[in-house]
Amino acid sequence: MPDKLGNKGPAELQRHSRRNIRLTIEYDGTVYHGWQRQKKIYRTIQQEIEEVLKEILQEKVALIGAGRTDQGVHAVGQVGNFRTGSDIQLSKLQLGLNSLLPADIVITHVEESGPDFHSIRSAKSKLYRYSILNRTYSSAIYGRYLWTCFQPINFAMMKKEAKHLLGRHDFRSFQATQKKEKTSVRTIQEIKIVKKGDYIYLDIRADGFLYNMVRIIVGTLVDIATGRKIGNIKDILGAKNRKKAGRTAPAGGLCLMSVSYER
Amino acid sequence: MPDKLGNKGPAELQRHSRRNIRLTIEYDGTVYHGWQRQKKIYRTIQQEIEEVLKEILQEKVALIGAGRTDQGVHAVGQVGNFRTGSDIQLSKLQLGLNSLLPADIVITHVEESGPDFHSIRSAKSKLYRYSILNRTYSSAIYGRYLWTCFQPINFAMMKKEAKHLLGRHDFRSFQATQKKEKTSVRTIQEIKIVKKGDYIYLDIRADGFLYNMVRIIVGTLVDIATGRKIGNIKDILGAKNRKKAGRTAPAGGLCLMSVSYER
Repeated sequence: MPDKLGNKGPAELQRHSRRNIRLTIEYDGTVYHGWQRQKKIYRTIQQEIEEVLKEILQEKVALIGAGRTDQGVHAVGQVGNFRTGSDIQLSKLQLGLNSLLPADIVITHVEESGPDFHSIRSAKSKLYRYSILNRTYSSAIYGRYLWTCFQPINFAMMKKEAKHLLGRHDFRSFQATQKKEKTSVRTIQEIKIVKKGDYIYLDIRADGFLYNMVRIIVGTLVDIATGRKIGNIKDILGAKNRKKAGRTAPAGGLCLMSVSYER
Repeated sequence: MPDKLGNKGPAELQRHSRRNIRLTIEYDGTVYHGWQRQKKIYRTIQQEIEEVLKEILQEKVALIGAGRTDQGVHAVGQVGNFRTGSDIQLSKLQLGLNSLLPADIVITHVEESGPDFHSIRSAKSKLYRYSILNRTYSSAIYGRYLWTCFQPINFAMMKKEAKHLLGRHDFRSFQATQKKEKTSVRTIQEIKIVKKGDYIYLDIRADGFLYNMVRIIVGTLVDIATGRKIGNIKDILGAKNRKKAGRTAPAGGLCLMSVSYER
């Protein structure tokens, strides 16, 4: 509490002296049980980083991640933030993190952020990429970062159908049934689908994503574009029923590319 | 032996009926002890493929590989050939190989080749790529396919020095001392070095390579371009002494891109 002269009391001083540090994180999610710390002994990305932060800062910190990526999902632009009383230099913090973290987790950027920055609540949009390899054999080098679809995909049909997902919709049909959010209305701001040789990349930007949303969207588009008779995207969206959509595409093809914040 | 009427005897028939099959092979070499079959229990690429071929063809075959890549070295365009009496369809052979091989070895192409084709002796040139990431932290996704150099590399100096390697030279200075070939004269037909952001790619094409030649060339160029006082390429080439060259760059950054044959 400030006294009559406006001086801050110890508790408030401490709160204000705590820095809010923002990390950009890249990881290969193959061996992890997703981003989020779990009570079980499973290894998760959040847990690995928090443990190394504790080691470096000699203080327990809570790392908030913008995207709670699922088991096996990758990221090149995950964003996290944590508060600390430590006065460690940012460059030393990054070096320390990268020398102590496992090779499949890398901190690509560290910066001081404003006191109100919150990696989830401050996020304006997130961009996910889903990568497909459409041929009868996988890639020895990139296999873990893509879904190898043996069935020929009708690319024009996939692009045409995907357009119906753009905009503000109730995406209940594209939400895993295990977890339910308060509302399943989201806005997809951008869908870009490109083909390079046998590779197809789907970039989807939205203000938020439901559980497994990108993977169900991709699985459904692939089902439609390989000739499975499951209806079209417009009808599936309208049904608001997970059972009307297609399968869930495998985790390995998904990557959190970036998180956007207001400047 | 042909009889008086020119008919072929059983042995000759058999020899002529044997097909010569060419494979194009992609692999992540991280967990393998190189290409070449070894007497020890180490896993090698050649051995993995030969064992699956034996399983499919029900016949022991010898697979000859164009580049005997070292432990931890990768390939996207390795070429191999083997002879078989089997009449298996090529498409079935490829599907069978890719379903039985581990995920880090993929057969990207299968074709029938002429009876005289030999993946080593018929090769006109091989192209290797060495990938460097020049910054103070690695990549979680591509880390196993590159060498992360923390020291800033003088890219212009690297390019300038590399030019002296072009052409026909005695590359004894760039040959690992463990293995010696009859002659250490080789012709480097092309060196292309490009920089994309923090990544540097060195493409080297030659009619043949000495043991560890690319890795010693890259290690030496990096030593020079990061300011280690080891002299210049021209003098090191002239010395014909491994001790004058720089270090051997790590295996993970090296990839056999392609092997060229006369059409």
